[in-house]
Amino acid sequence: MFLGNIDPGLQLDVVEQANSPQMIAMDTMNFWISGNGGDLAKTLEKVHILVINDEEARQLADEHNLVRAAEKIRKLGPQSLVIKRGDAGALLFTDDGIFAAPALPLDEVRDPTGAGDSFAGGFMGYLAHAGDLESATIRMAMITGSVMASFSVEQFSIDGLRNLTGEMIQERVDAFDHLTAYADIHLNIS
Amino acid sequence: MFLGNIDPGLQLDVVEQANSPQMIAMDTMNFWISGNGGDLAKTLEKVHILVINDEEARQLADEHNLVRAAEKIRKLGPQSLVIKRGDAGALLFTDDGIFAAPALPLDEVRDPTGAGDSFAGGFMGYLAHAGDLESATIRMAMITGSVMASFSVEQFSIDGLRNLTGEMIQERVDAFDHLTAYADIHLNIS
Repeated sequence: MFLGNIDPGLQLDVVEQANSPQMIAMDTMNFWISGNGGDLAKTLEKVHILVINDEEARQLADEHNLVRAAEKIRKLGPQSLVIKRGDAGALLFTDDGIFAAPALPLDEVRDPTGAGDSFAGGFMGYLAHAGDLESATIRMAMITGSVMASFSVEQFSIDGLRNLTGEMIQERVDAFDHLTAYADIHLNIS
Repeated sequence: MFLGNIDPGLQLDVVEQANSPQMIAMDTMNFWISGNGGDLAKTLEKVHILVINDEEARQLADEHNLVRAAEKIRKLGPQSLVIKRGDAGALLFTDDGIFAAPALPLDEVRDPTGAGDSFAGGFMGYLAHAGDLESATIRMAMITGSVMASFSVEQFSIDGLRNLTGEMIQERVDAFDHLTAYADIHLNIS
Protein backbone atom coordinates (compact mmCIF):
# COMPACT_ATOMS: atom_id res chain seq x y z
CA MET A 1 0.00 0.00 0.00
CA PHE A 2 1.25 3.48 -0.87
CA LEU A 3 -0.17 6.42 1.06
CA GLY A 4 0.02 9.45 -1.22
CA ASN A 5 0.63 12.93 0.07
CA ILE A 6 -2.65 13.85 1.82
CA ASP A 7 -3.60 14.85 5.37
CA PRO A 8 -1.88 12.33 7.70
CA GLY A 9 -5.17 11.88 9.57
CA LEU A 10 -6.73 10.60 6.34
CA GLN A 11 -3.68 8.43 5.68
CA LEU A 12 -4.17 6.82 9.09
CA ASP A 13 -7.86 6.31 8.30
CA VAL A 14 -6.92 4.49 5.10
CA VAL A 15 -4.47 2.25 6.97
CA GLU A 16 -7.13 1.34 9.51
CA GLN A 17 -9.62 0.42 6.78
CA ALA A 18 -7.10 -1.76 4.95
CA ASN A 19 -6.91 -5.51 5.42
CA SER A 20 -3.41 -5.83 6.92
CA PRO A 21 -1.33 -4.83 3.89
CA GLN A 22 2.03 -6.64 3.72
CA MET A 23 3.85 -3.35 3.40
CA ILE A 24 2.89 0.30 3.79
CA ALA A 25 4.90 3.13 2.27
CA MET A 26 4.02 6.80 2.48
CA ASP A 27 4.83 10.24 1.19
CA THR A 28 4.30 13.49 3.07
CA MET A 29 5.29 17.18 2.75
CA ASN A 30 6.33 20.32 4.64
CA PHE A 31 2.69 21.46 4.99
CA TRP A 32 1.68 18.39 7.02
CA ILE A 33 4.97 18.26 8.97
CA SER A 34 4.44 21.76 10.33
CA GLY A 35 0.62 21.66 10.37
CA ASN A 36 -0.47 18.22 11.56
CA GLY A 37 2.49 16.70 13.39
CA GLY A 38 0.27 14.76 15.83
CA ASP A 39 -1.53 12.69 13.20
CA LEU A 40 1.71 12.43 11.22
CA ALA A 41 3.48 10.83 14.19
CA LYS A 42 0.64 8.28 14.59
CA THR A 43 0.73 7.43 10.88
CA LEU A 44 4.52 7.09 10.82
CA GLU A 45 4.29 4.39 13.49
CA LYS A 46 2.29 2.21 11.06
CA VAL A 47 4.55 2.70 8.07
CA HIS A 48 7.37 0.48 6.79
CA ILE A 49 8.92 2.83 4.22
CA LEU A 50 8.80 6.63 4.20
CA VAL A 51 9.57 8.39 0.90
CA ILE A 52 10.31 12.12 1.26
CA ASN A 53 12.70 14.74 -0.10
CA ASP A 54 15.78 16.14 1.64
CA GLU A 55 14.16 19.34 2.90
CA GLU A 56 11.22 17.39 4.32
CA ALA A 57 13.62 15.00 6.07
CA ARG A 58 15.50 17.93 7.62
CA GLN A 59 12.26 19.54 8.75
CA LEU A 60 10.75 16.33 10.14
CA ALA A 61 13.90 15.49 12.13
CA ASP A 62 14.81 19.11 12.96
CA GLU A 63 18.34 18.18 11.88
CA HIS A 64 20.33 19.44 8.89
CA ASN A 65 22.69 16.46 8.53
CA LEU A 66 20.85 13.83 6.46
CA VAL A 67 22.51 10.80 8.10
CA ARG A 68 21.53 12.00 11.56
CA ALA A 69 18.09 13.09 10.30
CA ALA A 70 17.54 9.60 8.84
CA GLU A 71 18.49 7.98 12.13
CA LYS A 72 15.95 10.13 14.01
CA ILE A 73 13.17 9.54 11.45
CA ARG A 74 13.66 5.77 11.44
CA LYS A 75 13.09 5.81 15.21
CA LEU A 76 9.61 7.31 14.58
CA GLY A 77 8.42 4.12 12.86
CA PRO A 78 9.54 3.49 9.28
CA GLN A 79 12.22 0.81 9.17
CA SER A 80 13.34 2.10 5.78
CA LEU A 81 13.62 5.69 4.63
CA VAL A 82 14.05 7.03 1.10
CA ILE A 83 15.32 10.59 0.79
CA LYS A 84 14.85 12.05 -2.70
CA ARG A 85 17.31 14.73 -3.76
CA GLY A 86 16.23 15.73 -7.27
CA ASP A 87 19.10 15.63 -9.75
CA ALA A 88 21.43 14.53 -6.93
CA GLY A 89 19.60 11.17 -6.85
CA ALA A 90 18.09 9.42 -3.85
CA LEU A 91 19.38 7.83 -0.65
CA LEU A 92 17.99 4.70 1.00
CA PHE A 93 18.48 4.13 4.74
CA THR A 94 17.78 0.62 6.09
CA ASP A 95 19.17 -1.70 8.75
CA ASP A 96 21.63 -2.75 6.03
CA GLY A 97 23.15 0.74 5.80
CA ILE A 98 22.91 3.40 3.12
CA PHE A 99 22.39 2.99 -0.62
CA ALA A 100 22.91 5.88 -3.05
CA ALA A 101 20.95 5.80 -6.33
CA PRO A 102 22.08 8.50 -8.75
CA ALA A 103 19.74 10.47 -10.97
CA LEU A 104 20.40 9.87 -14.67
CA PRO A 105 22.10 12.96 -16.10
CA LEU A 106 19.82 14.15 -18.90
CA ASP A 107 20.51 16.61 -21.69
CA GLU A 108 16.89 17.74 -21.66
CA VAL A 109 14.91 18.37 -18.49
CA ARG A 110 11.60 19.96 -19.41
CA ASP A 111 9.48 19.62 -16.28
CA PRO A 112 10.47 18.28 -12.83
CA THR A 113 6.79 18.22 -11.76
CA GLY A 114 5.82 14.65 -10.92
CA ALA A 115 9.39 13.36 -10.65
CA GLY A 116 8.87 12.31 -7.03
CA ASP A 117 5.56 10.60 -7.79
CA SER A 118 7.08 8.80 -10.79
CA PHE A 119 9.92 7.68 -8.54
CA ALA A 120 7.40 6.36 -5.99
CA GLY A 121 5.47 4.56 -8.75
CA GLY A 122 8.55 2.81 -10.12
CA PHE A 123 9.73 2.03 -6.59
CA MET A 124 6.40 0.49 -5.49
CA GLY A 125 5.93 -1.27 -8.82
CA TYR A 126 9.29 -2.97 -8.49
CA LEU A 127 8.56 -4.09 -4.91
CA ALA A 128 5.19 -5.50 -5.96
CA HIS A 129 6.87 -7.28 -8.88
CA ALA A 130 9.60 -8.74 -6.61
CA GLY A 131 7.30 -9.63 -3.74
CA ASP A 132 9.76 -9.21 -0.86
CA LEU A 133 11.38 -6.47 1.22
CA GLU A 134 14.98 -7.69 1.29
CA SER A 135 17.55 -4.89 1.30
CA ALA A 136 18.77 -5.99 -2.16
CA THR A 137 15.21 -5.76 -3.46
CA ILE A 138 14.65 -2.26 -2.09
CA ARG A 139 17.94 -1.18 -3.72
CA MET A 140 16.68 -2.41 -7.09
CA ALA A 141 13.38 -0.62 -6.45
CA MET A 142 15.35 2.61 -5.90
CA ILE A 143 16.95 2.26 -9.33
CA THR A 144 13.58 1.46 -10.94
CA GLY A 145 12.14 4.57 -9.28
CA SER A 146 15.02 6.68 -10.61
CA VAL A 147 14.44 5.25 -14.09
CA MET A 148 10.77 6.25 -14.05
CA ALA A 149 11.59 9.72 -12.67
CA SER A 150 14.10 10.21 -15.50
CA PHE A 151 11.40 9.55 -18.11
CA SER A 152 8.95 11.82 -16.31
CA VAL A 153 11.14 14.95 -16.28
CA GLU A 154 12.09 14.73 -19.96
CA GLN A 155 8.58 15.74 -21.05
CA PHE A 156 5.72 17.86 -19.74
CA SER A 157 2.85 16.32 -17.77
CA ILE A 158 2.74 12.53 -18.13
CA ASP A 159 3.93 12.60 -21.76
CA GLY A 160 7.26 11.02 -20.84
CA LEU A 161 5.49 8.00 -19.35
CA ARG A 162 2.46 7.64 -21.61
CA ASN A 163 4.06 5.67 -24.46
CA LEU A 164 6.77 3.74 -22.64
CA THR A 165 7.39 0.12 -23.57
CA GLY A 166 9.01 -2.57 -21.45
CA GLU A 167 11.98 -2.46 -23.78
CA MET A 168 12.47 1.30 -23.28
CA ILE A 169 12.33 0.88 -19.51
CA GLN A 170 14.80 -2.03 -19.53
CA GLU A 171 17.16 0.01 -21.77
CA ARG A 172 17.19 2.80 -19.22
CA VAL A 173 17.72 0.32 -16.38
CA ASP A 174 20.79 -0.80 -18.31
CA ALA A 175 21.86 2.85 -18.70
CA PHE A 176 21.89 3.07 -14.89
CA ASP A 177 24.15 0.02 -14.79
CA HIS A 178 26.62 1.81 -17.03
CA LEU A 179 26.27 5.03 -15.02
CA THR A 180 27.16 3.35 -11.74
CA ALA A 181 29.47 0.43 -12.60
CA TYR A 182 33.07 0.27 -11.46
CA ALA A 183 35.43 -2.58 -10.67
CA ASP A 184 36.71 -3.56 -7.23
CA ILE A 185 39.52 -1.34 -5.99
CA HIS A 186 42.47 -2.87 -4.14
CA LEU A 187 44.95 -0.21 -3.15
CA ASN A 188 47.70 -2.20 -1.42
CA ILE A 189 48.94 0.88 0.41
CA SER A 190 51.62 -0.07 2.92
CA MET B 1 50.85 16.17 -14.08
CA PHE B 2 48.17 18.04 -12.13
CA LEU B 3 47.84 21.78 -12.69
CA GLY B 4 46.47 23.29 -9.51
CA ASN B 5 44.15 26.26 -9.50
CA ILE B 6 46.44 29.18 -10.49
CA ASP B 7 46.45 31.74 -13.33
CA PRO B 8 45.92 29.74 -16.55
CA GLY B 9 48.85 31.61 -18.13
CA LEU B 10 51.11 30.14 -15.44
CA GLN B 11 49.53 26.72 -15.91
CA LEU B 12 50.40 26.92 -19.62
CA ASP B 13 53.95 27.96 -18.71
CA VAL B 14 54.29 24.88 -16.50
CA VAL B 15 53.02 22.60 -19.27
CA GLU B 16 55.55 24.05 -21.71
CA GLN B 17 58.41 23.49 -19.27
CA ALA B 18 57.42 19.90 -18.59
CA ASN B 19 58.98 16.98 -20.40
CA SER B 20 55.92 15.61 -22.28
CA PRO B 21 53.93 14.32 -19.28
CA GLN B 22 51.86 11.22 -20.10
CA MET B 23 48.72 12.89 -18.81
CA ILE B 24 47.81 16.41 -17.75
CA ALA B 25 44.86 17.18 -15.52
CA MET B 26 43.88 20.62 -14.29
CA ASP B 27 41.65 22.53 -11.92
CA THR B 28 40.39 26.06 -12.43
CA MET B 29 37.82 28.42 -10.90
CA ASN B 30 35.24 31.15 -11.62
CA PHE B 31 37.85 33.92 -11.16
CA TRP B 32 40.00 32.66 -14.08
CA ILE B 33 37.01 31.71 -16.24
CA SER B 34 35.69 35.28 -16.18
CA GLY B 35 39.07 37.02 -15.89
CA ASN B 36 41.54 35.18 -18.13
CA GLY B 37 39.50 33.25 -20.65
CA GLY B 38 42.12 33.62 -23.41
CA ASP B 39 44.93 31.85 -21.55
CA LEU B 40 42.41 29.40 -20.13
CA ALA B 41 41.33 28.36 -23.64
CA LYS B 42 44.98 27.80 -24.66
CA THR B 43 45.67 25.72 -21.54
CA LEU B 44 42.52 23.64 -21.96
CA GLU B 45 43.74 22.56 -25.40
CA LYS B 46 46.75 20.87 -23.74
CA VAL B 47 44.82 19.10 -21.01
CA HIS B 48 43.50 15.52 -20.89
CA ILE B 49 41.29 15.75 -17.82
CA LEU B 50 39.59 18.85 -16.42
CA VAL B 51 38.40 18.70 -12.78
CA ILE B 52 35.95 21.47 -11.85
CA ASN B 53 32.76 21.96 -9.87
CA ASP B 54 29.24 22.26 -11.27
CA GLU B 55 29.01 26.04 -11.12
CA GLU B 56 32.38 26.39 -12.86
CA ALA B 57 31.25 23.96 -15.58
CA ARG B 58 28.07 26.00 -16.13
CA GLN B 59 30.04 29.24 -16.29
CA LEU B 60 32.74 27.87 -18.59
CA ALA B 61 30.20 26.43 -21.03
CA ASP B 62 27.61 29.20 -20.58
CA GLU B 63 25.06 26.41 -20.26
CA HIS B 64 23.00 25.39 -17.22
CA ASN B 65 22.37 21.75 -18.19
CA LEU B 66 25.42 19.75 -17.06
CA VAL B 67 25.25 17.12 -19.82
CA ARG B 68 25.21 19.80 -22.51
CA ALA B 69 27.84 21.85 -20.63
CA ALA B 70 30.11 18.80 -20.48
CA GLU B 71 29.73 18.22 -24.21
CA LYS B 72 30.76 21.83 -24.94
CA ILE B 73 33.71 21.75 -22.52
CA ARG B 74 35.09 18.48 -23.91
CA LYS B 75 35.22 20.17 -27.34
CA LEU B 76 37.60 22.78 -25.87
CA GLY B 77 40.31 20.17 -25.31
CA PRO B 78 39.96 17.83 -22.34
CA GLN B 79 38.88 14.37 -23.45
CA SER B 80 37.62 13.64 -19.95
CA LEU B 81 35.77 15.97 -17.61
CA VAL B 82 35.10 15.56 -13.90
CA ILE B 83 32.33 17.71 -12.45
CA LYS B 84 32.39 17.83 -8.64
CA ARG B 85 29.05 18.44 -6.92
CA GLY B 86 29.87 18.50 -3.21
CA ASP B 87 27.65 16.15 -1.21
CA ALA B 88 25.86 15.18 -4.45
CA GLY B 89 29.03 13.38 -5.57
CA ALA B 90 30.91 13.79 -8.83
CA LEU B 91 30.21 13.05 -12.50
CA LEU B 92 32.75 11.80 -15.03
CA PHE B 93 32.24 12.45 -18.75
CA THR B 94 34.39 10.46 -21.20
CA ASP B 95 34.01 8.91 -24.67
CA ASP B 96 32.61 5.93 -22.75
CA GLY B 97 29.63 7.93 -21.42
CA ILE B 98 28.86 9.20 -17.94
CA PHE B 99 29.85 7.76 -14.55
CA ALA B 100 28.26 8.94 -11.31
CA ALA B 101 30.33 8.62 -8.12
CA PRO B 102 28.30 9.38 -5.00
CA ALA B 103 29.63 11.26 -2.00
CA LEU B 104 29.69 9.12 1.14
CA PRO B 105 26.88 10.29 3.43
CA LEU B 106 28.60 11.30 6.69
CA ASP B 107 27.08 11.93 10.09
CA GLU B 108 29.71 14.58 10.82
CA VAL B 109 30.87 17.17 8.28
CA ARG B 110 33.10 19.67 10.03
CA ASP B 111 34.81 21.55 7.20
CA PRO B 112 34.25 21.26 3.42
CA THR B 113 37.39 23.31 2.76
CA GLY B 114 39.85 21.21 0.79
CA ALA B 115 37.31 18.58 -0.27
CA GLY B 116 37.92 19.31 -3.96
CA ASP B 117 41.70 19.22 -3.56
CA SER B 118 41.50 15.98 -1.58
CA PHE B 119 39.33 14.54 -4.34
CA ALA B 120 41.91 15.59 -6.94
CA GLY B 121 44.71 14.06 -4.85
CA GLY B 122 42.99 10.70 -4.50
CA PHE B 123 41.98 10.80 -8.16
CA MET B 124 45.51 11.53 -9.44
CA GLY B 125 47.08 9.14 -6.95
CA TYR B 126 44.90 6.30 -8.20
CA LEU B 127 45.71 7.04 -11.85
CA ALA B 128 49.45 7.11 -11.06
CA HIS B 129 49.08 3.82 -9.16
CA ALA B 130 47.16 2.20 -12.05
CA GLY B 131 49.32 3.62 -14.83
CA ASP B 132 46.70 3.85 -17.57
CA LEU B 133 43.80 6.03 -18.66
CA GLU B 134 41.19 3.39 -19.52
CA SER B 135 37.64 4.42 -18.75
CA ALA B 136 37.40 1.70 -16.06
CA THR B 137 40.55 3.10 -14.41
CA ILE B 138 39.24 6.66 -14.38
CA ARG B 139 36.02 5.39 -12.78
CA MET B 140 38.03 3.77 -9.99
CA ALA B 141 40.01 7.00 -9.61
CA MET B 142 36.71 8.85 -9.14
CA ILE B 143 35.81 6.57 -6.23
CA THR B 144 39.27 6.93 -4.70
CA GLY B 145 38.92 10.72 -5.00
CA SER B 146 35.53 10.57 -3.27
CA VAL B 147 37.05 8.44 -0.50
CA MET B 148 39.78 11.00 0.16
CA ALA B 149 37.29 13.88 0.08
CA SER B 150 35.13 12.07 2.64
CA PHE B 151 38.07 11.87 5.07
CA SER B 152 38.97 15.51 4.45
CA VAL B 153 35.56 17.00 5.36
CA GLU B 154 35.18 15.03 8.60
CA GLN B 155 37.89 17.11 10.31
CA PHE B 156 39.25 20.64 10.13
CA SER B 157 42.29 21.47 8.02
CA ILE B 158 44.24 18.35 7.00
CA ASP B 159 43.51 16.54 10.27
CA GLY B 160 41.23 14.02 8.54
CA LEU B 161 44.08 12.98 6.22
CA ARG B 162 47.11 13.29 8.48
CA ASN B 163 46.92 9.93 10.23
CA LEU B 164 45.28 7.75 7.60
CA THR B 165 46.54 4.21 7.09
CA GLY B 166 46.19 2.07 3.99
CA GLU B 167 43.75 -0.10 5.90
CA MET B 168 41.51 2.86 6.77
CA ILE B 169 41.46 3.96 3.13
CA GLN B 170 40.68 0.46 1.86
CA GLU B 171 37.87 0.17 4.44
CA ARG B 172 36.28 3.31 3.10
CA VAL B 173 36.71 2.11 -0.49
CA ASP B 174 34.73 -0.96 0.61
CA ALA B 175 32.10 1.33 2.19
CA PHE B 176 31.61 2.89 -1.27
CA ASP B 177 31.07 -0.60 -2.69
CA HIS B 178 28.27 -1.15 -0.18
CA LEU B 179 26.87 2.34 -0.85
CA THR B 180 26.56 1.75 -4.59
CA ALA B 181 26.00 -1.99 -5.07
CA TYR B 182 22.83 -3.42 -6.52
CA ALA B 183 22.02 -6.53 -8.52
CA ASP B 184 21.03 -6.67 -12.20
CA ILE B 185 17.40 -5.76 -12.78
CA HIS B 186 15.35 -7.72 -15.32
CA LEU B 187 11.83 -6.38 -15.52
CA ASN B 188 10.19 -8.66 -18.11
CA ILE B 189 7.48 -6.10 -18.81
CA SER B 190 5.30 -7.23 -21.69
